[in-house]
Amino acid sequence: MLIDHHCHSVVAEELDDTALGDLLTESDRPAAPGTSRFDSALGLAVRRWCPPALGLPAHAPAADYLARRRELGSTEATRRLLRAAGLDALLVDTGLTAAAGRPLLTLPALAEAAATPVHEVVRLESVAERVESGAADWPAAAAEALAAETARRGAVAVKSVLAYRHGLDVPPGRPARAALVRAAEDWLRGPRERLTDPLLLRHLLWSAAELGLPIQLHTGFGDPDLRLHRADPALLADLVRALEPTGVPLVLLHCYPYHRQAAWLAHCFPQVYVDIGLTVPHTGPRAAAVLGEVLELAPYGKVLFSTDAYGLPELYLTGAAQYRHGLAALLDDWRRDGALTGTDAERITAQVSGTNATRLYRL
Amino acid sequence: MLIDHHCHSVVAEELDDTALGDLLTESDRPAAPGTSRFDSALGLAVRRWCPPALGLPAHAPAADYLARRRELGSTEATRRLLRAAGLDALLVDTGLTAAAGRPLLTLPALAEAAATPVHEVVRLESVAERVESGAADWPAAAAEALAAETARRGAVAVKSVLAYRHGLDVPPGRPARAALVRAAEDWLRGPRERLTDPLLLRHLLWSAAELGLPIQLHTGFGDPDLRLHRADPALLADLVRALEPTGVPLVLLHCYPYHRQAAWLAHCFPQVYVDIGLTVPHTGPRAAAVLGEVLELAPYGKVLFSTDAYGLPELYLTGAAQYRHGLAALLDDWRRDGALTGTDAERITAQVSGTNATRLYRL
Amino acid sequence: MLIDHHCHSVVAEELDDTALGDLLTESDRPAAPGTSRFDSALGLAVRRWCPPALGLPAHAPAADYLARRRELGSTEATRRLLRAAGLDALLVDTGLTAAAGRPLLTLPALAEAAATPVHEVVRLESVAERVESGAADWPAAAAEALAAETARRGAVAVKSVLAYRHGLDVPPGRPARAALVRAAEDWLRGPRERLTDPLLLRHLLWSAAELGLPIQLHTGFGDPDLRLHRADPALLADLVRALEPTGVPLVLLHCYPYHRQAAWLAHCFPQVYVDIGLTVPHTGPRAAAVLGEVLELAPYGKVLFSTDAYGLPELYLTGAAQYRHGLAALLDDWRRDGALTGTDAERITAQVSGTNATRLYRL
Repeated sequence: MLIDHHCHSVVAEELDDTALGDLLTESDRPAAPGTSRFDSALGLAVRRWCPPALGLPAHAPAADYLARRRELGSTEATRRLLRAAGLDALLVDTGLTAAAGRPLLTLPALAEAAATPVHEVVRLESVAERVESGAADWPAAAAEALAAETARRGAVAVKSVLAYRHGLDVPPGRPARAALVRAAEDWLRGPRERLTDPLLLRHLLWSAAELGLPIQLHTGFGDPDLRLHRADPALLADLVRALEPTGVPLVLLHCYPYHRQAAWLAHCFPQVYVDIGLTVPHTGPRAAAVLGEVLELAPYGKVLFSTDAYGLPELYLTGAAQYRHGLAALLDDWRRDGALTGTDAERITAQVSGTNATRLYRL
Repeated sequence: MLIDHHCHSVVAEELDDTALGDLLTESDRPAAPGTSRFDSALGLAVRRWCPPALGLPAHAPAADYLARRRELGSTEATRRLLRAAGLDALLVDTGLTAAAGRPLLTLPALAEAAATPVHEVVRLESVAERVESGAADWPAAAAEALAAETARRGAVAVKSVLAYRHGLDVPPGRPARAALVRAAEDWLRGPRERLTDPLLLRHLLWSAAELGLPIQLHTGFGDPDLRLHRADPALLADLVRALEPTGVPLVLLHCYPYHRQAAWLAHCFPQVYVDIGLTVPHTGPRAAAVLGEVLELAPYGKVLFSTDAYGLPELYLTGAAQYRHGLAALLDDWRRDGALTGTDAERITAQVSGTNATRLYRL
Repeated sequence: MLIDHHCHSVVAEELDDTALGDLLTESDRPAAPGTSRFDSALGLAVRRWCPPALGLPAHAPAADYLARRRELGSTEATRRLLRAAGLDALLVDTGLTAAAGRPLLTLPALAEAAATPVHEVVRLESVAERVESGAADWPAAAAEALAAETARRGAVAVKSVLAYRHGLDVPPGRPARAALVRAAEDWLRGPRERLTDPLLLRHLLWSAAELGLPIQLHTGFGDPDLRLHRADPALLADLVRALEPTGVPLVLLHCYPYHRQAAWLAHCFPQVYVDIGLTVPHTGPRAAAVLGEVLELAPYGKVLFSTDAYGLPELYLTGAAQYRHGLAALLDDWRRDGALTGTDAERITAQVSGTNATRLYRL
């Protein structure tokens, strides 16, 4: 069993080589002059795991791979790549609806292409940005919209991008109503493009905590929009403590290069979980080493596999294959060293691959 | 020779399985639903090293181990585990007198059970919290109490928990008397439970520096009471510089996940030392890799072994065995790579295991 | 081909053993009592790679090595060590003119000793500190001096030590003229020893950006003058974004222990490059592991080899040999794991060793 507890849909249409390359990075900028998107840890990993799914040998040159993908067509390539990932359930964050300016597959279409059940993760900020109300009613209206949307979509979790919109360095408590209304006034007066007010963002977290669903939080690396040091999950300690009485699980996504800090939070606080998605595919040949770092302090019952795939079906297959290979390599090393038994290794693998997610999200 | 330069005493009485499990973590919270304390790097390490000391095979299941421990009784299990650790001296921080609500063995009882000489490390804040005086006299009285207590107990070092009580981000200088007296007034008016005023805490450090004993400082990870990013030893740079003229050694404890930052301080400043305790047992199968990270910048003459064992005798044996095994594995790798000779490896091992501590603490 | 894109010249005169040892560390303090400079990762690496260049076996004891070096004399030892490094070009930061109080070889003398072409990197702060003008003219005069000096010396890059002088935590924008003039007044009134005003330092960066030359920035570890946490390259994100429209390349030097953060910046921003100098020799037997960490997120077309050698010719040879050995060991591991092909490994090696530098600096 392998459950992808955090991912995104993939582009439906054909992609030219440049557009495909531009989805092989967290950057939204063009590649530097004289460099190729494939000359990276992720590029190596894609070339290792994806060509065989399209009938080419592993490590086929990028040009051969891209030619073969065009030959098969996007629909067929997507089906093959998604199915080769061998995933048993996808928990899809639907906060993004396009990649590289192109629309993503709907959830039913993604489920069909992957031949896998799909569950939805609702992004807090996306819901809140669509709330229509006066400032005085905005706090309640936002909370109601979250409750209504998660119910309507049968969401299994919600997701916060506080790290992008402000940074994780926020005061921990529930914001006072008067301050919220003032912040809502500013928001409603503005162009309403992206919600970035830290009071309103915190209000969403506290409102979400009442829904009882696990809250996934972006932490650590991501696209250039981020201030990386303000996405250090260690900055969440006070908020974690403040939310502890609600009992709502907090799932720290990605975390890298602060994954040891995230693992410490999962070690200390019963309701904190830690994810290895995005990090495992992006670190390519180093995935086993990075997984090892996460497993230093994180209780094995609180570590969750994901791909954080977005846009490209290659990222599903690469994320899943890198994880399976990397964790097996790590645990084999530990066995050779005498650190655990085969039974221990199987239990750890089962926990991170699926039983932790099944229990946490009540799948 | 193996000298444990920072540890705590162990629980005297019988522990039920839950209480024992609750001492296998830095968390003071209950385990998350559906998880076991043994499903962790430390849990694997305890199951690797401790069962043989109680007559079971390595990697015995947790339930078998706990049953065997109950069968032997706490006193006998404690003796066996402590003695199997093979330690030649213990430097015990006596700032904690209980674990999981249960009293700890006295130092003579610990020395007898471990068949090892015991030296005392006096915790600054514990002494200061017992000082009875008016505010105007408090600064001098606290300094005198530290001098008297360390002399009375023959202390070989003192210990600061500034990282827990405030964070390591304090101004470096010696606090002015007038400000100290005002802070003492606030402290004396309050419930006097835990000293957290940064001025008073800094006063303790500066007073301790006059005693000439090495000052051990908690840095890096620990229990949930901590704000991890404010326990980064890099934050101490200005204080390290300010204290440099006193010549008093500063020993950075634990350090993880900021152990590379701590190693840099030890690299730059003659009076700074770096410890690997707590980290080595808690990172389990990853201990060799983490040791490697410490040994990147830290001069080998300034790295110190400890267990930071607390509450459970298992943590003594696990800390010592993980260290011996991890350092040997690391140095064997380096030899195979051609990076050093067998003589070099022996010298490094001797330094970290004991000669550094013997010189630093004048044992 | 191996291009050292950031280094310093070496001491011309004979060094006694203590002076030589004092150049084997970033510390400017004496070694701690009872410790040797050779008992470190860098010490092991020097003893591994340098004795054969002087006719001794690898791993010769430090005393034998020092005796043999004296026997040969500094001039001959320097020639042998520099030439054994096998470097094809040196990009020398001329901001430092002495080491351990002794003058460094001139660039022509260095080029002759190493039998290698030498290019110059001009240090911004050194130029600005020599500017003579009134405060009102200082901003323009500093910019003109930078343009004149880089042209006169045929510089291929400039270098900023903002991390040392203030910290990387500066506001991103170009400073306003009025504020600059006030800051220049303060500077000109003072003893004019070291430029530390953050406005003036930022002005130098913005002025340098107009020259079109790559800007090398010290980030990460260095000597005790540094506040390490304020040298975290992640702090540069806003400045990187602000400078992005100028198109000027920013080269993050050293970076350790924040090299993963630096790699993320190189991943996200087309104009950011990342260096592994200083780190690779100083981490000795761990160089391959640290290189692996850099190569997790950094595009392979944006990673640059350097030695950051300074003062001792040993640091050239050790830096080059550690890099060659460490990268080969890392890539061999990856090949054995099936992560890449031999062709891939050769391309990565060629990029980091020289083609990236050739393209970036237009050599």
